[in-house]
Amino acid sequence: MSATSFLRRLLGGGAGGVDRRISDLASLCEALLAEPGEYASTALARQALAAYRALDERLRTEFFGVLAQDYSPAPEAVAHAVAAYQADPSAEQLMALQAAVETPRQKLFRRFNMAPDGTATLVAMRGALLKDLKAHPEWRPIEWDLMHLLRSWFNRGFLRLQRIDWRTSAIVLEKLIQYEAVHAIHGWRDLRRRLEADRRCFAFFHPQLPDEPIIFIEVALVRGMSAQVQPLLDVASPVAPPAEADCAVFYSITNCQEGLRGISFGNQLIKQVAEDLKREFPHLRRFATLSPVPGFRRWLQKSRVRVSMGSGGDERLALLARLADPAWHLGEIPEALEKLLTRLCAWYLLHARQDGEPLDPVARFHLGNGAALERINWMGDSSEQGMSRSAGMMVNYVYWLADVERNHERYFREHHIAASPQVEKLAREGAAAAQADKGAAG
Amino acid sequence: MSATSFLRRLLGGGAGGVDRRISDLASLCEALLAEPGEYASTALARQALAAYRALDERLRTEFFGVLAQDYSPAPEAVAHAVAAYQADPSAEQLMALQAAVETPRQKLFRRFNMAPDGTATLVAMRGALLKDLKAHPEWRPIEWDLMHLLRSWFNRGFLRLQRIDWRTSAIVLEKLIQYEAVHAIHGWRDLRRRLEADRRCFAFFHPQLPDEPIIFIEVALVRGMSAQVQPLLDVASPVAPPAEADCAVFYSITNCQEGLRGISFGNQLIKQVAEDLKREFPHLRRFATLSPVPGFRRWLQKSRVRVSMGSGGDERLALLARLADPAWHLGEIPEALEKLLTRLCAWYLLHARQDGEPLDPVARFHLGNGAALERINWMGDSSEQGMSRSAGMMVNYVYWLADVERNHERYFREHHIAASPQVEKLAREGAAAAQADKGAAG
Amino acid sequence: MSATSFLRRLLGGGAGGVDRRISDLASLCEALLAEPGEYASTALARQALAAYRALDERLRTEFFGVLAQDYSPAPEAVAHAVAAYQADPSAEQLMALQAAVETPRQKLFRRFNMAPDGTATLVAMRGALLKDLKAHPEWRPIEWDLMHLLRSWFNRGFLRLQRIDWRTSAIVLEKLIQYEAVHAIHGWRDLRRRLEADRRCFAFFHPQLPDEPIIFIEVALVRGMSAQVQPLLDVASPVAPPAEADCAVFYSITNCQEGLRGISFGNQLIKQVAEDLKREFPHLRRFATLSPVPGFRRWLQKSRVRVSMGSGGDERLALLARLADPAWHLGEIPEALEKLLTRLCAWYLLHARQDGEPLDPVARFHLGNGAALERINWMGDSSEQGMSRSAGMMVNYVYWLADVERNHERYFREHHIAASPQVEKLAREGAAAAQADKGAAG
Amino acid sequence: MSATSFLRRLLGGGAGGVDRRISDLASLCEALLAEPGEYASTALARQALAAYRALDERLRTEFFGVLAQDYSPAPEAVAHAVAAYQADPSAEQLMALQAAVETPRQKLFRRFNMAPDGTATLVAMRGALLKDLKAHPEWRPIEWDLMHLLRSWFNRGFLRLQRIDWRTSAIVLEKLIQYEAVHAIHGWRDLRRRLEADRRCFAFFHPQLPDEPIIFIEVALVRGMSAQVQPLLDVASPVAPPAEADCAVFYSITNCQEGLRGISFGNQLIKQVAEDLKREFPHLRRFATLSPVPGFRRWLQKSRVRVSMGSGGDERLALLARLADPAWHLGEIPEALEKLLTRLCAWYLLHARQDGEPLDPVARFHLGNGAALERINWMGDSSEQGMSRSAGMMVNYVYWLADVERNHERYFREHHIAASPQVEKLAREGAAAAQADKGAAG
Repeated sequence: MSATSFLRRLLGGGAGGVDRRISDLASLCEALLAEPGEYASTALARQALAAYRALDERLRTEFFGVLAQDYSPAPEAVAHAVAAYQADPSAEQLMALQAAVETPRQKLFRRFNMAPDGTATLVAMRGALLKDLKAHPEWRPIEWDLMHLLRSWFNRGFLRLQRIDWRTSAIVLEKLIQYEAVHAIHGWRDLRRRLEADRRCFAFFHPQLPDEPIIFIEVALVRGMSAQVQPLLDVASPVAPPAEADCAVFYSITNCQEGLRGISFGNQLIKQVAEDLKREFPHLRRFATLSPVPGFRRWLQKSRVRVSMGSGGDERLALLARLADPAWHLGEIPEALEKLLTRLCAWYLLHARQDGEPLDPVARFHLGNGAALERINWMGDSSEQGMSRSAGMMVNYVYWLADVERNHERYFREHHIAASPQVEKLAREGAAAAQADKGAAG
Repeated sequence: MSATSFLRRLLGGGAGGVDRRISDLASLCEALLAEPGEYASTALARQALAAYRALDERLRTEFFGVLAQDYSPAPEAVAHAVAAYQADPSAEQLMALQAAVETPRQKLFRRFNMAPDGTATLVAMRGALLKDLKAHPEWRPIEWDLMHLLRSWFNRGFLRLQRIDWRTSAIVLEKLIQYEAVHAIHGWRDLRRRLEADRRCFAFFHPQLPDEPIIFIEVALVRGMSAQVQPLLDVASPVAPPAEADCAVFYSITNCQEGLRGISFGNQLIKQVAEDLKREFPHLRRFATLSPVPGFRRWLQKSRVRVSMGSGGDERLALLARLADPAWHLGEIPEALEKLLTRLCAWYLLHARQDGEPLDPVARFHLGNGAALERINWMGDSSEQGMSRSAGMMVNYVYWLADVERNHERYFREHHIAASPQVEKLAREGAAAAQADKGAAG
Repeated sequence: MSATSFLRRLLGGGAGGVDRRISDLASLCEALLAEPGEYASTALARQALAAYRALDERLRTEFFGVLAQDYSPAPEAVAHAVAAYQADPSAEQLMALQAAVETPRQKLFRRFNMAPDGTATLVAMRGALLKDLKAHPEWRPIEWDLMHLLRSWFNRGFLRLQRIDWRTSAIVLEKLIQYEAVHAIHGWRDLRRRLEADRRCFAFFHPQLPDEPIIFIEVALVRGMSAQVQPLLDVASPVAPPAEADCAVFYSITNCQEGLRGISFGNQLIKQVAEDLKREFPHLRRFATLSPVPGFRRWLQKSRVRVSMGSGGDERLALLARLADPAWHLGEIPEALEKLLTRLCAWYLLHARQDGEPLDPVARFHLGNGAALERINWMGDSSEQGMSRSAGMMVNYVYWLADVERNHERYFREHHIAASPQVEKLAREGAAAAQADKGAAG
Repeated sequence: MSATSFLRRLLGGGAGGVDRRISDLASLCEALLAEPGEYASTALARQALAAYRALDERLRTEFFGVLAQDYSPAPEAVAHAVAAYQADPSAEQLMALQAAVETPRQKLFRRFNMAPDGTATLVAMRGALLKDLKAHPEWRPIEWDLMHLLRSWFNRGFLRLQRIDWRTSAIVLEKLIQYEAVHAIHGWRDLRRRLEADRRCFAFFHPQLPDEPIIFIEVALVRGMSAQVQPLLDVASPVAPPAEADCAVFYSITNCQEGLRGISFGNQLIKQVAEDLKREFPHLRRFATLSPVPGFRRWLQKSRVRVSMGSGGDERLALLARLADPAWHLGEIPEALEKLLTRLCAWYLLHARQDGEPLDPVARFHLGNGAALERINWMGDSSEQGMSRSAGMMVNYVYWLADVERNHERYFREHHIAASPQVEKLAREGAAAAQADKGAAG
């Protein structure tokens, strides 16, 4: 371990400018790694984490520099293990090589985790690293080590599915208000409506973060598959008897922990919740999302030239030009524009792809999960955000419990997208307008 | 991933003798590794684990063979990453190398863990591997992978300290009876006495194994430091008011999970419990163990020649010869024998070492934790096991909360053993009898 | 309140022989009644209860004497209220009369209840009173006051139904072993078998007595309605998959708290459990008891003369005479005896009555609940107790969920007993043997 | 039981105008009383309560009429028991009389309580009765019966003290906002501040009403005894470290259940909380309230004539006349007015009495509990309510744990009020101004 090199540098004079708080923290880390007793480790870990949390942004940047530089395996040791493996590629040498390439950072992080709040601090640390990773590519190995540990610790086996309702503690409910990323929650009254008898909310929790949802999903129990989101979000809407619902609409799903980015929980959450709801309400016949098409406007913008080609191109361009006015949807809208946008949206969802997968991130998520693209809803979300990203479009992806596995497989094997005949027809009509073949997407 | 190679062999004819249950399980494992969706993974994991648990010992051996052979990283891929790293030993290449040497087995085990009871099954699997590792050295890499994961998952941060008492569920209490390794618990009545008001029992639990203690410790709250264990274990002894106790005697500590061997919990448990007890009973002045000396008789046996040397050697040999009679301690015992054994025991504990550390495993544990060797108790344990291993000797190691860190450090830095003057004097007297200098131990 | 009179007597010399502990306790009770502040009351209540619990049996008897004598309403006050009510039988005067006749004892007991363990102590106090009530008829008013309070506090609304299984705390499980009144539980191994997957156990609990079951019931999930109890109690019997059961057999129900005698819980427990089991196992088709006939042998003894009358009377008497030998059932049993006993048992259950209700207490309980007498089982319980009370007979009472209310009503309105045709036929055959008409029972 | 008489009247034609819902409910009540089986009772109770809850106010009034009229004991039966008791005033006859005067209503209410939510409904029923009792004096017996039962069921022994904080469920927190009666809680942000680390909130709960606080108290942990309430209520105030506090200020206590009016909980809550806080924060030296003087302005108004008498009377009157302006306290206030009001307030608190007890209800509560009147704070509460009721005055009552019992006793025995020398001096100065002797209060 080369952590000592840092201290040596500190004492050697070159470290003239190093802040005392950083050198203290580095000493704690070194002591922590050297400590043979676990009990003493816990005390050291507590101190080290407290010192880390007290750093401001500038000092944290400095500390990440130390972590990047001094907690990598010693190159000579790696080189030695590499050579030994080449000479004798046996199981024994492979284990020795595995041990040699593991970074002291991982051991350090495992020891951090022994302190109370250790896990929460490491999740937050990865969040901070990810935020500035572009500016600091040298932090990648730190982030990589954390990802490795967190993926292991946040294994599905350790997560608990919990229903969130008005009986849940305020400390958790407050987090929902804070984290909700799809349709903002406007205070406690709004939240309360989303937890009434005709709504459901579920979250995954980790035993080490009892007050922190990892991911949560909001569901409306309704009659008929919802086409528009505003009625679902209406605080003043009457509460309907859930026993009369025939459709569960997943209208919001939010990942809460930036520091767990890249570890996917949504697939499991959505299916577990669908199964649990089916058990509680056997008469539910449909499990559908009401989802935005967040990449649609950007794609439209980029695709204008193509749209303008062919017969009627000028007309189409003129229609689309109306969207430049932020209030375009408030007055009367030409039926031709509605038709054009709906068709282009269908085409976009089915055929605009990158590496075989849909360009639209929400489509990628649900179709990859095995859902089917069921319906495109004109003016499904007339909020500012809904208009500016999705041109007001909302999509129902349906999870047919019986088809989900097959859809999921065909999606990954053949890049096949399950879509309703109605959406496929729209997409065909859109193809003419987009003047585009599948290859020309993106 | 070379798992497919196994299936290929199966189909290729060479696998004529492979049991159907093994090939089915191998297919499940392969599907599990290939599955991109976590939800589907959970279902596959459940099936694979059920199939694994249904194997008898012969088939399990066969399956471990598959795991050892087919779930290692592909040698070419490793060789390639090794070469790339040699050409460019950058952080990027190091990460690539780390990724290349990680075994598919680890990914497989992480996915196993998604199933209910996954963690418990993996702990049991490592237990099974360890049991036969000597006969199957080729299983070492499997065991190594499991150890890697389990050490991470059973990090101190994830463990919960819980008091065990008569309010605890029978499912847990039953495990204490089953696991107790130091002083066997003879049924529920015996257990009940160990959970009365003047006794304490604590255990570490893991959220994923709610009914399984990981390690537990038994404590007696007494006046004066106990010298003999039989009174503590007496089911009929009266319950003393704990508020009058001045000493907490740790008389038994048991690791429960064979599959977690090598991951140490005792150090933390003992100190955490001492701190908690001090808070509950501020008038406790001493935290001491009452421990066996399990290696003493074996060492005595081996050291007979040395003991016989020098003046009085024949006499000493004659005295020790009495121990050959299993009932030697039941009649009258010559004072000379008591003296001789006590001194030799002191010498053994302080000076019989291997690689600088005490030969005796219990001494190694407590002294390494920072305890001090306080007293040697003649006829401290007159049970059959106590006589046959420890010649009836029992030792008090004392945890002086103020000294524990310093003792622990000096032990690891200088191999220094903290001992009371009384024990040191006995050891000096024993030195003559043992005719031995420190170098001649073992 | 006339409690002071007692103290006055104490001081007045007549109380020369009064034990100091009784006079102290009486002073505490008086202070408690006089105390206007609830907080101070709680402290006084704690002291008074501790003093009460420390009394030995002789002193307790003395204290009950004080309670009976000094904590009744002042006769003059009652007389005054009585007169006022007679003069003006208005609602106001009725309330005044109600207030006047309420005993200070009730207030005292309500204040006792404010102390920790108050409820438990009062339950135990009523238990002690009931035990010796015959010898001390002057205690009746005390017992009556306690009954009044306990009936109110142990209202069904305050009870919680809890499943008891191997996850339950040992402190509760131990009570089952101690309390079981129908088929004794022989230690923890026996208990464990009764809590396996094909058995169920439920109890009512009161929030104030968290570790004390009020009443519990044991159920076996079996295929076919059990005719014999020994196989159900067999510790070594294999555990059957509960999903394959078609019948729930209630084979034991025990009231645990002597001090709650006369407050009935069994009716509710049995039906609540039947409903819950039906929900968990929809394929259960029958809910039946396997019950003793505890009054049968005693009745047989008393009815010998009648049995001997008529034709074949001597023969019958000779057969029944065999029962004098405690081992009569161990050798070969004449078929004629089996027939005779079975018929007489049917006759006894249907026709031996007192005040219109069955003489047999178990029959009274289940038939009053609305169950139907389904089957009489020869040698259903060959244990010593089963033979000596029930002549080995066991009866299945069936709770047909659809009929229970109607049966229950007809039982109370018309003293009608619901019985299967098979049992009714046996009873007709028994009528000849018993030479008895319905009126001659008892 | 004369309930049938009601039905008879219904059928007899005189009940032509009775609403069907009332006659249905009355039938259910009658069936419930007649039902011998507890299990059937529970079902009937459920139906009856549902029917009751569905009544609108007019029908509820009608139903209360039925309860008042038809569920009283039959006068003949009472008369008979009365006569029997007069003839033989024995314990037996007393019990018979007690049984005769108990109303069938009490039995009915006990059976109501068997249904889920029974207790909550009965508490609400008494609340509704109390609200209109003045207009309906004939409801008094109903209210009396309910009071009798509720006092027994809400015995201190059944209540649980729970800390309320930000981890508490929203369903409970919402109730605090709704119920707070002293210093209104303005939304969730306000509530959150009152639950921070330097505040404490505790409530009593009953097992049968898990989501309903019975009474709650709010405490601020501060340095120095607070003189003004606005800083304590300031949402934006910084959170102080509780370990540095030396005084616990009880600044709000609210009874939540109108239906439990007359059953006092505050005495116990306040002392239990003081004890618990002392244990958690041993360095707390003072437990004081910051309380309004809600009767002060009303008393001032009534006492104007007396204040005007004597020398300087006109001047005093002129000063007090300023209070007519609602904004009198916003500008500069003459020192003479401050002095006058403070002295009059002291006099009011110590000497304005009714039946020996202080006229001011808050004073009566705390002084009766054993607190001492420590300090009068000018402009302690400048809110609209504080000004209009208390003329801005706030009082610190101190609970000296060592003196509380003695103060409490002297208060009830001698009507002695414990007050600080400073307050007594003010009161003496006020005496001149009030021109009043103690007898002239009220």
